[in-house]
Amino acid sequence: MAEKNNTKQMILDAAISMTSKIGLSALSIGKLATATCMSKSGLFAHFNSKQNLQIEVLKSAEAKFVETVVRPALAKPRGVARIRAIFENWLSWTNSVILPGGCPFVSLSMELTSQPGRLQNYLISSQTQWLNFLTGAAQIAIMEKQFRYDLDTKQFAYELFSIFLAYQHAKHLLQDPMAETRARTALDRLLDSVAL
Amino acid sequence: MAEKNNTKQMILDAAISMTSKIGLSALSIGKLATATCMSKSGLFAHFNSKQNLQIEVLKSAEAKFVETVVRPALAKPRGVARIRAIFENWLSWTNSVILPGGCPFVSLSMELTSQPGRLQNYLISSQTQWLNFLTGAAQIAIMEKQFRYDLDTKQFAYELFSIFLAYQHAKHLLQDPMAETRARTALDRLLDSVAL
Repeated sequence: MAEKNNTKQMILDAAISMTSKIGLSALSIGKLATATCMSKSGLFAHFNSKQNLQIEVLKSAEAKFVETVVRPALAKPRGVARIRAIFENWLSWTNSVILPGGCPFVSLSMELTSQPGRLQNYLISSQTQWLNFLTGAAQIAIMEKQFRYDLDTKQFAYELFSIFLAYQHAKHLLQDPMAETRARTALDRLLDSVAL
Repeated sequence: MAEKNNTKQMILDAAISMTSKIGLSALSIGKLATATCMSKSGLFAHFNSKQNLQIEVLKSAEAKFVETVVRPALAKPRGVARIRAIFENWLSWTNSVILPGGCPFVSLSMELTSQPGRLQNYLISSQTQWLNFLTGAAQIAIMEKQFRYDLDTKQFAYELFSIFLAYQHAKHLLQDPMAETRARTALDRLLDSVAL
């Protein structure tokens, strides 16, 4: 059973890397079989359908995101220090060697925009949860007397998210060597403007 | 000749709409033939290859972008008024009825990130030109004594771009009714922070 789970996780890891590059629509059991040196029937036994595979890829990428970005940040002091840690972990996440095309949630946001259905619903719910988490981090910074009391925390989350989206664009499409500097400067400006 | 050009533009208009929804990789001469009620051989005569079609779609979308976003803004007074006009036109562009999936350059930025080649080069050059145009708009605002003299205008362009990317995400994926308000609030904060 443990070995079966290990195999499945190995397949999902390969699938997340492929999704980062080619998206979910182009991810087929055939391509994944080639990448993992497994038979198509062997893969089919793990996922039963392409859509199940796609959902499991999303869930597995989300679990990795929590491990890489969220969990280490929760070990940091509440408030600005935690928000800075979230941001740095988020940049590291999109530069991870397992994600050759950058953060898969960003590319999937574009890919799935015009594809209503189970995958889109899952992604919207996951992205909304993430924005709520960022909103919560700003609320904590208010409680810690680091952010203004009247701050619109949802607006803060929108702007934090926007800096990340521009970072992914500058880093992965434009290959701008200044991408990190631009993102950190934008974060500093955002934090300055909301400080108590 | 004029009729031939009209037909070609009609095909390209349909192709831009499809690209906004499904991207360039999935855009085939076959699908476009179905959408325009033309024969595949008729379409092939206009473009010769899928890659030529893709490049012409990009060029045609770029021309429409200039007409919709840039040209009307150039009629506005130099400085902040022009930057606000650029921003409003940019929001209108992504909500145009001819773009059911929003701004095609944003979705293509994700799609082409992992696809080096002629299309990616064209998109990078086009996106860089756009960022340079935004940088120039900020330089004009400095000359007009509306922005701080020491402003990093490339940083301004990065942050303006970031607000638009988050807007497209909030509007088209999350269908957030607050998307416009969030984008305009972020713009106001950016303009406030750079004002002389």
